Amino acid sequence: MSMTATRHILCLNSGSSSIKFAIFALGAGGEEKLAEGAAERIGQRAGRVWLRQGETPAIDRQLALPRQQEALKAVFAALAELHCPPPEGVGHRLVSGGPHHQTHRLIDDGLLRDLRAALRFAPLHLPAEIAAIEAVQTAWPHIPQVACFDTAFHQTIPEIASRLPLPRNLWHEGVRKYGFHGLSYEYIVSQIPARADGKTIIAHLGNGASMAAVRNGQCRDTTMGLTPTGGLVMGTRSGDLDPGVLLYLMEEKGYDAGQLERLLNHLSGLLGISACSGDMQTLLNLRGDDPHARQAIDIFAYHARKAIGSLMAALGGLDRLIFTGGIGEHAAAIRWAICQPLRALGLEMDPVANEGPGPHLSVPHSPVDILVIPTNEDLMIARHSHRLLLAREPPR
Amino acid sequence: MSMTATRHILCLNSGSSSIKFAIFALGAGGEEKLAEGAAERIGQRAGRVWLRQGETPAIDRQLALPRQQEALKAVFAALAELHCPPPEGVGHRLVSGGPHHQTHRLIDDGLLRDLRAALRFAPLHLPAEIAAIEAVQTAWPHIPQVACFDTAFHQTIPEIASRLPLPRNLWHEGVRKYGFHGLSYEYIVSQIPARADGKTIIAHLGNGASMAAVRNGQCRDTTMGLTPTGGLVMGTRSGDLDPGVLLYLMEEKGYDAGQLERLLNHLSGLLGISACSGDMQTLLNLRGDDPHARQAIDIFAYHARKAIGSLMAALGGLDRLIFTGGIGEHAAAIRWAICQPLRALGLEMDPVANEGPGPHLSVPHSPVDILVIPTNEDLMIARHSHRLLLAREPPR
Repeated sequence: MSMTATRHILCLNSGSSSIKFAIFALGAGGEEKLAEGAAERIGQRAGRVWLRQGETPAIDRQLALPRQQEALKAVFAALAELHCPPPEGVGHRLVSGGPHHQTHRLIDDGLLRDLRAALRFAPLHLPAEIAAIEAVQTAWPHIPQVACFDTAFHQTIPEIASRLPLPRNLWHEGVRKYGFHGLSYEYIVSQIPARADGKTIIAHLGNGASMAAVRNGQCRDTTMGLTPTGGLVMGTRSGDLDPGVLLYLMEEKGYDAGQLERLLNHLSGLLGISACSGDMQTLLNLRGDDPHARQAIDIFAYHARKAIGSLMAALGGLDRLIFTGGIGEHAAAIRWAICQPLRALGLEMDPVANEGPGPHLSVPHSPVDILVIPTNEDLMIARHSHRLLLAREPPR
Repeated sequence: MSMTATRHILCLNSGSSSIKFAIFALGAGGEEKLAEGAAERIGQRAGRVWLRQGETPAIDRQLALPRQQEALKAVFAALAELHCPPPEGVGHRLVSGGPHHQTHRLIDDGLLRDLRAALRFAPLHLPAEIAAIEAVQTAWPHIPQVACFDTAFHQTIPEIASRLPLPRNLWHEGVRKYGFHGLSYEYIVSQIPARADGKTIIAHLGNGASMAAVRNGQCRDTTMGLTPTGGLVMGTRSGDLDPGVLLYLMEEKGYDAGQLERLLNHLSGLLGISACSGDMQTLLNLRGDDPHARQAIDIFAYHARKAIGSLMAALGGLDRLIFTGGIGEHAAAIRWAICQPLRALGLEMDPVANEGPGPHLSVPHSPVDILVIPTNEDLMIARHSHRLLLAREPPR
């Protein structure tokens, strides 16, 4: 029967100079990741393709990857070399589909046209993502492709939370809160079916970072807004600001849009505060000697703490807080810095459990459960792609 | 003795087209407001000066007020006409003194020079405030003047909260969180001496709106930032935003600094959402028939609620929430909309007390006390001016 047949899904996460990939086998037998890897330094002098199976490195080679096209050919070749079966479908992570596409779906020419017209909603991300779709379409036109949107999870946010306090005509143009990291949030919610009831905050903390307020499995609010520049303090992004800061920089320092974009996306956040690095692990290593590194960590944790309070208020209470993402999963010191001052709000972290493997990080009687759950956005892409591919196959 | 002598202080709150004023007698006998009023429509065709004593209207006349100079002469004339004693000092409310002046002080030529150099920190407010100081200096050079800064109360905010997540050189230029409405917060703190210990949020909600997180009487954080455009949703101001929204407007719609300034300060907030009014009372009157008015109210309350949660997290708990300002003092429906969903966070408002005269609005066993206290920024200006004037007088 079609519903039980195994399908191989190649999941792609495309950036401007790299494509991360993972190939899964999904079917009645379960969900198995066969391999993962990346094509890196696309468009630079010496590219790289690497691939591992489980924790075992299998391929790591240097070769020129002038464009997405060549990078994907190198990925397909590497998979064939390891006798991975050819994918029956390719699933793409798309940061945004603009106002008209927020539901995961099969890619057709109409969707591609709409995505090209929605570039302005994710100018830093969508061009590379569209290029990857086009490269697959050109080289393997028989393989169906699926678009998985990081905005999908946030469609349930009520208008009171997604409408920005701006003139109404801007809402009609699509200027609103979309939210991102949705594939990560979906995966976390899928991991806690019995617990998804009630009031949950999921903190996806990585180089990009956001939080989602979830009630009974549905998103009610999130920290990111129109773009991934908003919300929390991040590695190199500012997060939300008094817009008067931008007006000041324009009027007093003559900044144009390009300079502001560079400042707020690439030179702010942890990097701006520390004046040395936007990488949390680097800052944690430096914090004993470098007061600016320590301050960047403190400010990151302070803003994260305030966001938890803000989303608790949005939910009208809190049953559990779940950490995920690179920082959320691995930086116990950051989790402690965020949670410890929130004891009076019911978050009683256990300092020993916090250093352990998880998932439970709070003391048994803590009014709010604190957990850590590793995210798996690729698997979420594979699941959606599998579901949508099966749905399009004619019933037998 | 000098400390017991009564002094008459004229308090001025100067805007671009109006000067609000109040005259107080302060001394050993207490604090008495003798009169208050305003000079309005300065620079327009027909100006107006009005004055009342207590609730009794005393003067209301039309006359041309081409500049601050003429407006202040009309105010002094009106006071003389009612046999108010001539002021021994004039206290000015200043929104900002820039990075170098945040402590209330006597005005001298050095301060005036610095204020003129700090215009960029409050371009919408400082020009009129400086013009009023200059007008008094020219016409009544013998009257000492005092500058009272709305940023003064916020000097105790720790750097972790006042430093923006931007490159460090911007901090050195003065780009940081200052906070505003400080005279209102100071007055509220002065009204609760026995209660000022512990963790307090003061919600100053008016046409401009902000909140302050206060611990043991000292400010620890506030919602407004570099400028009064940031923080909460306000009458016509947006409050904090994803900076990506401004980048979008610049890149996609070609907005320049002037257009953004107009949009974010004058066309956003309640006015932008409702598409009809930035005035809360008007919206409350319309909300039964106008879904956009109702939505603007709901979004205002939602953002205020989230800010309370955020500042609770910053304080690590909450002992009391105090409402003040035009909306905070008078709009029971808004207070209810803000607090009612926060029961699980310990804010148990009493719906009957909330409709009454205050100050207590919460049920007796509420973990968080909720109060309303009318603010009195003018009295705060008078007190500071009185204190600074006495300090400069030679001891007898």
